[in-house]
Amino acid sequence: MTSALLLLSGGQDSTTCLAWSMERFEKIYTLSFDYGQRHRVELEQAKKIADLARVPNEIFSLNLFDQLSKNALTHQDIDIAAGDEKTLPSTFVPGRNQVFLTIACMKAYQKGISHIVGGMCQTDYSGYPDCHEDFIKSIEKTSSLAMNRDFTIHTPLMNLGKAGSVKLMQKLGKLDWLAESHTCYAGERPACGKCPACELRLKGFEEAGLTDPLEYQKTPSFR
Amino acid sequence: MTSALLLLSGGQDSTTCLAWSMERFEKIYTLSFDYGQRHRVELEQAKKIADLARVPNEIFSLNLFDQLSKNALTHQDIDIAAGDEKTLPSTFVPGRNQVFLTIACMKAYQKGISHIVGGMCQTDYSGYPDCHEDFIKSIEKTSSLAMNRDFTIHTPLMNLGKAGSVKLMQKLGKLDWLAESHTCYAGERPACGKCPACELRLKGFEEAGLTDPLEYQKTPSFR
Repeated sequence: MTSALLLLSGGQDSTTCLAWSMERFEKIYTLSFDYGQRHRVELEQAKKIADLARVPNEIFSLNLFDQLSKNALTHQDIDIAAGDEKTLPSTFVPGRNQVFLTIACMKAYQKGISHIVGGMCQTDYSGYPDCHEDFIKSIEKTSSLAMNRDFTIHTPLMNLGKAGSVKLMQKLGKLDWLAESHTCYAGERPACGKCPACELRLKGFEEAGLTDPLEYQKTPSFR
Repeated sequence: MTSALLLLSGGQDSTTCLAWSMERFEKIYTLSFDYGQRHRVELEQAKKIADLARVPNEIFSLNLFDQLSKNALTHQDIDIAAGDEKTLPSTFVPGRNQVFLTIACMKAYQKGISHIVGGMCQTDYSGYPDCHEDFIKSIEKTSSLAMNRDFTIHTPLMNLGKAGSVKLMQKLGKLDWLAESHTCYAGERPACGKCPACELRLKGFEEAGLTDPLEYQKTPSFR
């Protein structure tokens, strides 16, 4: 029986990856990180989404970004680390996906799993080097060497834009799951519909010609 | 000015790497991990050793091995993860060096540092894949890709045995620093001189034809 471990943030991309994984793997474990993200509502939504798929969800608590970002605030690289305050969580630090994927592989190792699935996408986040395919291939090799196991890291959204991702979810017949996925940077449910994250999400649905099942505070202009 | 970030566990190998780094880098930061290791005395010794070298030492707190090893206890891979109870810390998990080096690179990134130094050695720990040179080269590349910076990970002890490492320390004129390095698995100071770690250390000094400056509970038979 082929099993996979999925990184489930509770956002649109990882929710889509869960639906994708359901068609490919017989047993799926989902792993979510509680790392001091701005909106813990993501973790509640991740749990709900895992319940929809009837797969286990584990929350892994990580204290390290606090220690890294506190220091970043006093340092020369603050411009890079802080990025665009409107679009990145305050705890964003370069290398975050390296931590997430390292722990995912360690967890998978313990569970006897070789397949990891993540929602990384180099189309939308081209500014983040740790979303790029060459990084994913490299950490796949690094983790395999570190633990002496052949890991495969699947990133089905790698070259899809938001619209392509929405279309994939429709094709998988799980568009309704996205009603539970959390995107809004304002942390609001119903979603604000105005923040850059909501805008990007709605634009994806618009381009795909589909309706977002997520509840918004008011009907977005282009729905 | 060339700076380096050194992983300083407080053990013999990382202490030797500190002396090695002093000859190569103008500015050195040392990073120690508080990860629930059996003997916190290591951290106190790391601080003393950093003081000897007059370089800063930062203790980074990591809660993740607890979460990984607790789960390991209930799982099929427990034999591998627990290893030999006499010679590995109870919190040992495959992939540990991947976590340490990932965080070291993230920390270095924030400090504008490109050089990382670690005491990994494939001679003594051939059973640990995350001490091997191919793993080190791979994570060097992975971290460089993740953070878009050219990191170099130096492992001066990679192909040295314990005796070679002792001789290197003598050549560097810092053999006395090893009086502060902690090795004993029993966590004792003066060291027990009988546990497998003390035995390995003493054997290295014996083969190098040098005297260990560390205080032992009784004079070991072959000193």
